[in-house]
Amino acid sequence: MKQVLLLIDRISSRVNANLREFDFDVEPFINASTNLPKLLNYYASYAVTSKHPLKLQFSSSNVAGSYFLGKCLVNRSVVYKSDVRGDELKRKGEIIFCSKELPLVEDEIITIRDSFLFKTLIHNKSHNLETPEEFFIRNTVAAHFSNIHGSTLEGCYLGLFATVDLMALHSCIVGDFSYIQVEELFHRAIKPGTVWLANDDFSFQYNYPEEILKRYVALDAEFKPVGRLIDFVEERKTDFDRLFEQITMDSFDIPQSSTVNRFALVQGKTRIGKNVLICQRSCLENAEMGIGSNAQENTYIINSKLSGYDVTAHGAKILHSLLGRKVFVAFNSFLNGKPTARIKIGQNCIIMPHTIIDADEPITIPDNHLVWGFIGSQNDLRENTISLADLENSNELVLGNMVFHGDGKAFVNAFKERFEHILEVNGAYYAKGKNRGHAQSDQSASFNMIQPYRTGPNRGIYPTITIEP
Amino acid sequence: MKQVLLLIDRISSRVNANLREFDFDVEPFINASTNLPKLLNYYASYAVTSKHPLKLQFSSSNVAGSYFLGKCLVNRSVVYKSDVRGDELKRKGEIIFCSKELPLVEDEIITIRDSFLFKTLIHNKSHNLETPEEFFIRNTVAAHFSNIHGSTLEGCYLGLFATVDLMALHSCIVGDFSYIQVEELFHRAIKPGTVWLANDDFSFQYNYPEEILKRYVALDAEFKPVGRLIDFVEERKTDFDRLFEQITMDSFDIPQSSTVNRFALVQGKTRIGKNVLICQRSCLENAEMGIGSNAQENTYIINSKLSGYDVTAHGAKILHSLLGRKVFVAFNSFLNGKPTARIKIGQNCIIMPHTIIDADEPITIPDNHLVWGFIGSQNDLRENTISLADLENSNELVLGNMVFHGDGKAFVNAFKERFEHILEVNGAYYAKGKNRGHAQSDQSASFNMIQPYRTGPNRGIYPTITIEP
Repeated sequence: MKQVLLLIDRISSRVNANLREFDFDVEPFINASTNLPKLLNYYASYAVTSKHPLKLQFSSSNVAGSYFLGKCLVNRSVVYKSDVRGDELKRKGEIIFCSKELPLVEDEIITIRDSFLFKTLIHNKSHNLETPEEFFIRNTVAAHFSNIHGSTLEGCYLGLFATVDLMALHSCIVGDFSYIQVEELFHRAIKPGTVWLANDDFSFQYNYPEEILKRYVALDAEFKPVGRLIDFVEERKTDFDRLFEQITMDSFDIPQSSTVNRFALVQGKTRIGKNVLICQRSCLENAEMGIGSNAQENTYIINSKLSGYDVTAHGAKILHSLLGRKVFVAFNSFLNGKPTARIKIGQNCIIMPHTIIDADEPITIPDNHLVWGFIGSQNDLRENTISLADLENSNELVLGNMVFHGDGKAFVNAFKERFEHILEVNGAYYAKGKNRGHAQSDQSASFNMIQPYRTGPNRGIYPTITIEP
Repeated sequence: MKQVLLLIDRISSRVNANLREFDFDVEPFINASTNLPKLLNYYASYAVTSKHPLKLQFSSSNVAGSYFLGKCLVNRSVVYKSDVRGDELKRKGEIIFCSKELPLVEDEIITIRDSFLFKTLIHNKSHNLETPEEFFIRNTVAAHFSNIHGSTLEGCYLGLFATVDLMALHSCIVGDFSYIQVEELFHRAIKPGTVWLANDDFSFQYNYPEEILKRYVALDAEFKPVGRLIDFVEERKTDFDRLFEQITMDSFDIPQSSTVNRFALVQGKTRIGKNVLICQRSCLENAEMGIGSNAQENTYIINSKLSGYDVTAHGAKILHSLLGRKVFVAFNSFLNGKPTARIKIGQNCIIMPHTIIDADEPITIPDNHLVWGFIGSQNDLRENTISLADLENSNELVLGNMVFHGDGKAFVNAFKERFEHILEVNGAYYAKGKNRGHAQSDQSASFNMIQPYRTGPNRGIYPTITIEP
């Protein structure tokens, strides 16, 4: 056990060194959040398929409860109950553009070094043009339910439910429940509850009112995660235990072109349509998943219907809701409908990342709208939605806590393109052997369990394991 | 799947090339015995402890249903539902004697290359003085429930329930249910049902009558294993399935100094005493395991009592029997007592490897006896037992189908020493932190599951996996 404690201590010293200008200390958070018995006892798993390049290596690390798919190297790190999905990594020979053509000389690999990730999702590929073959996470602590999506990190702290998307970060603090997608960021501390997207064409920024945010997510005086979002996931935790106790699970009736991950929880009267992808650690209960829909990692779809081609991005929660076709529910959104206060979302709507809809009355959002921020009543929609058509014609917009500058059309197009890209890579449009995506390629994964040393000074450390073709 | 078929084909060609002088063909046996769906779908497991040196590597192989502990390298082989236990391998610096001192320059490792092993047990360490650091098995096919015990093999075929013990074999065929321990053997075909021990001091040989042997074990016209021994294990097979479907098993009350392996089946009113070792794939039902007793791999102890310090060697089966203290039931013996025909064995008895006791009347064997061959009635004991005292005074002996030459005292001593050595290494004499053995060192193992590719030409082949400290 001694080695695990040394490892944790070394990681927090390194992260603190990177964040010294902010006088920031990750140690109390790490100490409050580390569940040592689980760290010592949980097994980890990795998936092998014939469709994804294979190279996995775990050394001098603890990876309790985590899941790995695709190329990944973990060294001197704790990756706790995290999902590391390398199924969108770039491959050797692929060409990226950055003023001139830049062909990849080898397959891209995710590398995690000197970092502590709590229940973090890692997905997509490096959008850091300087390291196209390496999607790296170094000297970083990421808190519960954070998403590291296509973003390289060095010397960072990501707060609870924080998302960093398609960018590069150096020595930054990203506050709880903040979402940022701003290409590159150096030595910045982002306030909790910030939703910020910016590039050469536009900038979108929304800030959660402090009082509201802390109802949903915060650290208490003892540095323990609290709030309704934490309560929500904690309450449903035990349901998952069953999944991790059995090697094989009863498979149930799903179309051949769809995948339900072995570590997904599917209950009640759930119906899975064609070309549907249900990822690990997602929870479906009385969910109707129309053709081409998906439920990504850490999502919950309960008593809800997704009409078809709907995207439920990493960490999104959809309760008592009815979604029209082609609705994009982005990262960590919380659509908290109730039996007497259902949420109805029209087709082609974009629910921005980190949106919370939590009302005591039914909420109806018309077709073709952008939705963001906190919505506590139907009345709140005035300051938290705009029709896509109106946005396309805007270049300056202030609505409630949201400020938009730049090319509205470019902004809407960027989202639409991304949405279509997500459907494509997930295999939503698969037909007759064409347009194959994750829903078709991930289904033939085999799952392998690995465990740490059980006794001695290395207790909790995993042996060095290398898996290659 | 193509690669698995090529692999199997290549192995049989190589083994056939080694055995060409006998005009022997392993192919029909391999084809009849290979359960392709299971080969393609079963997972394998390896154990990691802090007590045993660690180095495992699996490459270009299928290891479905197998279990590995300690240093082992598997390359271009099929190791099907086998147990490979490297917990008695020699370690760097250890000294073996062969006219002069020979210190080991590195830890010993089991290497399995170009071989196909069916439900085979591999244990102990290389007794081949020429390769003290490598316990190798090359170009070999071993049939169901064979034991490769401390024996290096190249170019061999081991029949059903065959045992090779503490020796080296080159281009040999060992018939079904034969046991041999004769130091070294070149280019020999051993008839089925031969029990043969020989060294400079003595020689013991027993041959099963053909008619009797084929009731218990044989290949039928389609090369499928048949007979009562096969029926016995097949009937109990489904009970094991449960063990392999769950990650964690309910643990039950056992003394701190004892180990029940995660993949052992323990049922009914079974009582486990102190310093007891229950190995993987052993089956206990209404078994009373006295202090310091053990049940090694593929053993069955049903409705029986072991009074204490009893050894149940790999593959032995004990039914409706009462064993006094310090009884040695050696490899693959079948003590087939019935509720109305119980078997009672006095203390300090040695049941020779591959003994069958199968009567319709109670059988009682007095203390301090050696027992061998086939015993179908109390009357048969006359030609199949001798008191250890009488044997110690013999140097020439013919009893029924048994012929003994040489130093009787040396023979008895060799068995007694080995018996005590087995008790020691298994931890039977553990007390107050001293005399630690497998029962104490194997209990903190963590079990890791690995799986093959699920689709594509490599379906059924395991990725290259390397596990190091």
